[in-house]
Amino acid sequence: MLPFARITVIGLGLIGSSILRGVRHHMPTVRLTAFDADPAVRERVVELGIADDVPDTAGAAVIDADLVMLCVPVGAMGAAAEAFAADLPADAIVSDVGGAKLSVLEALRAALPNALIVPGHPVAGTEHSGPDAGFATLFHGRWVILTPEDAPEAAVERVKAFWEKLGSNIEIMTARHHDLVLAVTSHVPHLIAYSIVGTASDLENVTQGEVIKYSAGGFRDFTRIAASDPTMWRDVFLNNKEAVLEILQRLTEDVTALQRAIRWGDGDTLFNLFTRTRAIRRSIIEQGQDDERPDFGRTHE
Amino acid sequence: MLPFARITVIGLGLIGSSILRGVRHHMPTVRLTAFDADPAVRERVVELGIADDVPDTAGAAVIDADLVMLCVPVGAMGAAAEAFAADLPADAIVSDVGGAKLSVLEALRAALPNALIVPGHPVAGTEHSGPDAGFATLFHGRWVILTPEDAPEAAVERVKAFWEKLGSNIEIMTARHHDLVLAVTSHVPHLIAYSIVGTASDLENVTQGEVIKYSAGGFRDFTRIAASDPTMWRDVFLNNKEAVLEILQRLTEDVTALQRAIRWGDGDTLFNLFTRTRAIRRSIIEQGQDDERPDFGRTHE
Repeated sequence: MLPFARITVIGLGLIGSSILRGVRHHMPTVRLTAFDADPAVRERVVELGIADDVPDTAGAAVIDADLVMLCVPVGAMGAAAEAFAADLPADAIVSDVGGAKLSVLEALRAALPNALIVPGHPVAGTEHSGPDAGFATLFHGRWVILTPEDAPEAAVERVKAFWEKLGSNIEIMTARHHDLVLAVTSHVPHLIAYSIVGTASDLENVTQGEVIKYSAGGFRDFTRIAASDPTMWRDVFLNNKEAVLEILQRLTEDVTALQRAIRWGDGDTLFNLFTRTRAIRRSIIEQGQDDERPDFGRTHE
Repeated sequence: MLPFARITVIGLGLIGSSILRGVRHHMPTVRLTAFDADPAVRERVVELGIADDVPDTAGAAVIDADLVMLCVPVGAMGAAAEAFAADLPADAIVSDVGGAKLSVLEALRAALPNALIVPGHPVAGTEHSGPDAGFATLFHGRWVILTPEDAPEAAVERVKAFWEKLGSNIEIMTARHHDLVLAVTSHVPHLIAYSIVGTASDLENVTQGEVIKYSAGGFRDFTRIAASDPTMWRDVFLNNKEAVLEILQRLTEDVTALQRAIRWGDGDTLFNLFTRTRAIRRSIIEQGQDDERPDFGRTHE
């Protein structure tokens, strides 16, 4: 038994197009409808042949769906939902993949006051964007967080079963806790990566050419996540302000302590931290959340 | 013509053992001598068979060398050099791979006042440590920075030819400039990575289990370089204090500006930065300094 028979994906970037491919691969009998507000993206998805139908309006796309999965930037969720509100079947479940959950829940509830809403967030991705960047195995072994708040349990179970079919593990928590946890494991790391790449490219006494040449010293690692979709990430920060600022404040305090340790030559503080952080890496690899090969498996000729 | 015929490597971790393997592969006729202050490491190198000779003292290791390559943590360079100072042939060239160059130059000059010293730094590595972690291709396509200051040109040319044989590109600059450039491209990124991993594991309202589970949101990228050798990195920060603190100060200012943009909902500032940083990633890939495959080439089943 499949949890859904007619799935509509709205927003056809990396995540949306990966869901299309994942459903096609893992649930081949499901009827897949796809919509994107950008006609060029719709056309590309038709060319890629990863959906059964790609109508020209959001309303037409949801008309007989039993699951509508919103995969647009978090700041666009409300408008994307409004665009199909009038055509949404009463028993359809609406879910999403947004990286900030409190604000999305609010936007979806306002746009679809009577809908069955089960917000979600697959913690997966790459630095590439657009319908060509997606792939069916993106969610394999990754965690999907559902923040159903007061959604009916049967609806939550179906969304859970959907993600399990795509190869994911599921966790349920409140939207507020999600936003704090993701501020730590995703949002602040992205902000710092963007910031460090910006700082490095703005220096007067080190050229951009030098930064690029010697990036293998560690800097290049930060450039990967700093190459992620700008619209998506702008929206995440604007929609998870409180938690991001809270964690950023904590990080700033900890960086200040390290700064002080360096200034005063306190090697023990540095050494103790650097030893502790190794253990976290080991746990991440043991739990299958990163590649165990050195250097992420980068090629060395 | 090979630049050196009898090479001694002192310090047999990731870099030292990669040099042994690289020389064996690219210059198979060179006689390779290896030494490490730790008897267990020497024993392991004997087992690995990656050197012709592994004597029990630093003095015995350099006695007929024409190149002595120091691959110990930067804080141990002075003591490592003193240990063989009395046995160093007058015409041998001493070089090193330390990540901070002003302090190493000073330490080597003090320990070996009459030696031909050509300091260097291969900008290459992985998060793994020890003699088993090394591999012959580690330096392929990477940049090696030489900071010869007033070393004779003939000596510099030979060290340059040595690294070219190992597959590297060479740049020459002052030790001071090196230390600033590497603070940007390596030292501060490592410090921030260590710091963010430390912060994430110390929160009261987010568990370490959660941090690990949802690390694929970006956090896990930071854990790789935060798994690097603690001794090596403690020494780098203690020996490149001035430049690290200068760049850290700049980064702090830039993070503060982003923090302000988030607080006041200034999406344009965020979007503009996030667009700029994408271009740097593209240049790094175009110049062969990172893997062009998405997600660094990580496996997705």
